[in-house]
Amino acid sequence: MKGKLFYLGVSGMQRSIEILDSTLRDGAQGEGISLSVEDKLAITKLLDSLGVAYIEAGNPASNPKDMEYFQQISHTAYANASIVAFGSTRRKGVPVEEDANVQALLEADAPICCIFGKSWKLHVTEILGTTPEENAAMIGETIAYLRENGKRVFFDAEHFFDGYKDDPEFALAALQAAADAGAECLVLCDTNGGSFPDEIGEITAVVAGRFESVKVGIHCHNDCGMAVAGTIAAVQAGAEHVQGTWLGFGERCGNANLSNVVANLQLKRGIACIPAEKLSELTTVSREIAEIANVRVPHSQPFIGASAFAHKAGMHADGVLKLSRSFEQVSPESVGNERRFLMSEQTGRAAVLQRMQRVCPELTRQSPQTQVILDRLKQLEHDGYQFEGAEPSFELVVRKSLGLYEPYFELVSYKVLDEEPGDDTGNSATATIKIRVGGELSIAAAEGDGPVHALDLALREALSHFYQSMVRCRLIDYKVRVMDSKQATAANVRVLITSTDGKDVWTTVGVSTDVIQASWLALVDSFEYRLIRDGIER
Amino acid sequence: MKGKLFYLGVSGMQRSIEILDSTLRDGAQGEGISLSVEDKLAITKLLDSLGVAYIEAGNPASNPKDMEYFQQISHTAYANASIVAFGSTRRKGVPVEEDANVQALLEADAPICCIFGKSWKLHVTEILGTTPEENAAMIGETIAYLRENGKRVFFDAEHFFDGYKDDPEFALAALQAAADAGAECLVLCDTNGGSFPDEIGEITAVVAGRFESVKVGIHCHNDCGMAVAGTIAAVQAGAEHVQGTWLGFGERCGNANLSNVVANLQLKRGIACIPAEKLSELTTVSREIAEIANVRVPHSQPFIGASAFAHKAGMHADGVLKLSRSFEQVSPESVGNERRFLMSEQTGRAAVLQRMQRVCPELTRQSPQTQVILDRLKQLEHDGYQFEGAEPSFELVVRKSLGLYEPYFELVSYKVLDEEPGDDTGNSATATIKIRVGGELSIAAAEGDGPVHALDLALREALSHFYQSMVRCRLIDYKVRVMDSKQATAANVRVLITSTDGKDVWTTVGVSTDVIQASWLALVDSFEYRLIRDGIER
Repeated sequence: MKGKLFYLGVSGMQRSIEILDSTLRDGAQGEGISLSVEDKLAITKLLDSLGVAYIEAGNPASNPKDMEYFQQISHTAYANASIVAFGSTRRKGVPVEEDANVQALLEADAPICCIFGKSWKLHVTEILGTTPEENAAMIGETIAYLRENGKRVFFDAEHFFDGYKDDPEFALAALQAAADAGAECLVLCDTNGGSFPDEIGEITAVVAGRFESVKVGIHCHNDCGMAVAGTIAAVQAGAEHVQGTWLGFGERCGNANLSNVVANLQLKRGIACIPAEKLSELTTVSREIAEIANVRVPHSQPFIGASAFAHKAGMHADGVLKLSRSFEQVSPESVGNERRFLMSEQTGRAAVLQRMQRVCPELTRQSPQTQVILDRLKQLEHDGYQFEGAEPSFELVVRKSLGLYEPYFELVSYKVLDEEPGDDTGNSATATIKIRVGGELSIAAAEGDGPVHALDLALREALSHFYQSMVRCRLIDYKVRVMDSKQATAANVRVLITSTDGKDVWTTVGVSTDVIQASWLALVDSFEYRLIRDGIER
Repeated sequence: MKGKLFYLGVSGMQRSIEILDSTLRDGAQGEGISLSVEDKLAITKLLDSLGVAYIEAGNPASNPKDMEYFQQISHTAYANASIVAFGSTRRKGVPVEEDANVQALLEADAPICCIFGKSWKLHVTEILGTTPEENAAMIGETIAYLRENGKRVFFDAEHFFDGYKDDPEFALAALQAAADAGAECLVLCDTNGGSFPDEIGEITAVVAGRFESVKVGIHCHNDCGMAVAGTIAAVQAGAEHVQGTWLGFGERCGNANLSNVVANLQLKRGIACIPAEKLSELTTVSREIAEIANVRVPHSQPFIGASAFAHKAGMHADGVLKLSRSFEQVSPESVGNERRFLMSEQTGRAAVLQRMQRVCPELTRQSPQTQVILDRLKQLEHDGYQFEGAEPSFELVVRKSLGLYEPYFELVSYKVLDEEPGDDTGNSATATIKIRVGGELSIAAAEGDGPVHALDLALREALSHFYQSMVRCRLIDYKVRVMDSKQATAANVRVLITSTDGKDVWTTVGVSTDVIQASWLALVDSFEYRLIRDGIER
């Protein structure tokens, strides 16, 4: 039997491929995904920091938000990533110079265009209603025109695998038209997601053998639940360019999940996708992208999910403690994740300790306070807290547990009234608040266009008499996540609040069944953290 | 090139395999999965109704709940499924007659036992701390003993692929010991989930060639995100028995998702897994299992998820309307799911029109009302509404625009008070509501552990005097998204509320700067939609 397939471990990279992330374009087709221009800019920054080669950022012709994005990144230099604008070939019968889609691609400030065209005869005759010759002309003329205008071009051969299975010569002719016109990469798309990995591998090998002077790429959808496997089969068959979305977002069942593709290829087959030293940021960056997209990473997500290295069965946990590789395919550290033993005492001690030492460098693994903090943390996490991205709140927990915390103010009471109909000022919510600072009481009231808005304004007003510097601070982001949503409106709510003084930015977290109370807790942390950091006297 | 791999469609079944569902056993190892005996009995019934051959129901030695299950099903005759009890080989150095695990297997009233044993030398020497000879004896003696006592036996070769890659002869010797002792199926387990489909296929082919008189089975875990692909590769290489869990629940990243495996093999490769006529129940039964396990089916889940046949991109939606197979790999009906067109800025006019026609079939592209509705839609989307996944709210917009809407009740006023500190009941929010139904006023108050909870309860109470059927309905999901979060707490908030009457599930949406008002709007839509659908008189 052949031995070539069996890998017992990989040392050093054997080859490298390029990654094109389409979270901002194909990912935005996913149900429930709606990204603002700010969201897109933030995700671009994260993907660039990970070392992704190409970021397909949007379709400037179909979406005004996307055009705004391209205007905003104009002249931005990213460390690793090149920005790609997506669009289609010219329409049938329209001269390329007059095609609005193609013109929009030229206007977008991106060095590379990825255009899609038909490679399944059925689509040409039945959907477009044109001839194979016109289809080849649409592909060839569009690419040639973009090349003449200084763009690099990738060609997405839509429905390539279905097209190839139906009529190989037709499908290959579409690729030939693209290659002849100057496309630098021919991307084979399983648009309907219905092809199996073995088919994808076999067909990709044929294409890679035929087109030796251009790169072959792969773009899989997950309708069979095998997009990652299909992508990897194509790479093993010769594809050198991989398209997908970072967390698998995308229309219907999503696109190939790049966080899985990259970890698999790089850790287990020695095929470099991103710089080696970046792999340990995989978990954190992936979770940050999910947070921006307001999507929860499924806990069972390979490599990056919270359960990916969580051991529940007693025998597995015991085995891992004896020898981690006995029950783990890769080490959690290799992807920046962590091992967890469910219902056990040993959760994440080392990682947490490191963060505690930022507040109190003397803490060691053996310090009795360490255990106190760990216990407190466990309780808070059980209640729904999550301190990733909200380190200020974590530091406050550590301070409180160590007795290093003295409150700047004490809440006596607040009342928030929300009513419908409101009065004629347009505000529906009123908050009154009573706090005590030192021995002094401070009472304030405010109204806002929502209960949290009113509460924020009232607290700021009440504090302003004592802490002038708070006047400069303001909230810039507010996120709400409902956890364990099975219990619907009685479920726990986690609120993340991001604040700024115009220079620094910090995020705090609060959890409660009551969205107003959760917001209150995050607000208080935001104020307290800032006052401590500035060394303001109580 | 070889053509054997390309399938353009399948007519008639080419071969059949047997399915062993381990949702109740390996699935219960998943984080967050906790099944009562009643849950397990209900899932057994559903799997049996689908025509699954084997249900691995638990480990009677390790879990008293499992032993209770076996007592309860004793003498129950299922139409299709045989019940399997799971356990391990005897411990090292312990005579099989004295081994408590093995005795528990005999006590459990199941005709078949599935036992696991080691097939990776590393585990024998490093984890068990014994010799290859004793390991073979543990496997052989346990199986022989169970056979003598009237049980059929499946053998789960734990870590088989890692073991084979490490030392093929050792791994094969473990299988030989099981076959010699009377196991009827040798199940190759990728316990750590780290093997790629190509390796799994190749190794399975070797085993299937070597053991011709016993069945070969496959058991994959999803740590690489390729468990479905690995399972299918094994079946294509000769495996005749497939283990997994119905929805992919399981330790770490889960087991092979059988709902995907079955749909793929049966619809696309002509390999029968369950009776053909049962496939159209796939979606409903899968969602019912998820409901019992208190887990939401991810909307992007292949075949059975709510988005599996949902089209958002305008071009895709238009294509599907022309010719469904142009953008769908299988028909939604084949698995009992349904096609949906998502309402979004990217949705084509044709799809929106189709949705409008569900309310008013006479509408055409040219109707003046069509433009009125489209304009209204555009305005609402600009305000932050998003109707994808919230079609009931969309239908209400259409009704209102067409003058086909008459409210079931009229809000006079509500007041929601949220305060800190609260009283000693643990509830922090109180809502009072006044509504008018016909000429009659109805006033109600309720408290809850958050403002929306209180408002929901108060509205339900006020309506219950008029609309009895609302009592059966309850909220099951609640989502909050803050849009354009630059404006922080004064930003627009979008609330999605999912309701159920225990059978149907529907989602509605509300948008406001005020989270309580946004929730209110979604709540009202939920109630109104349900009353209209039921044809309740005003």
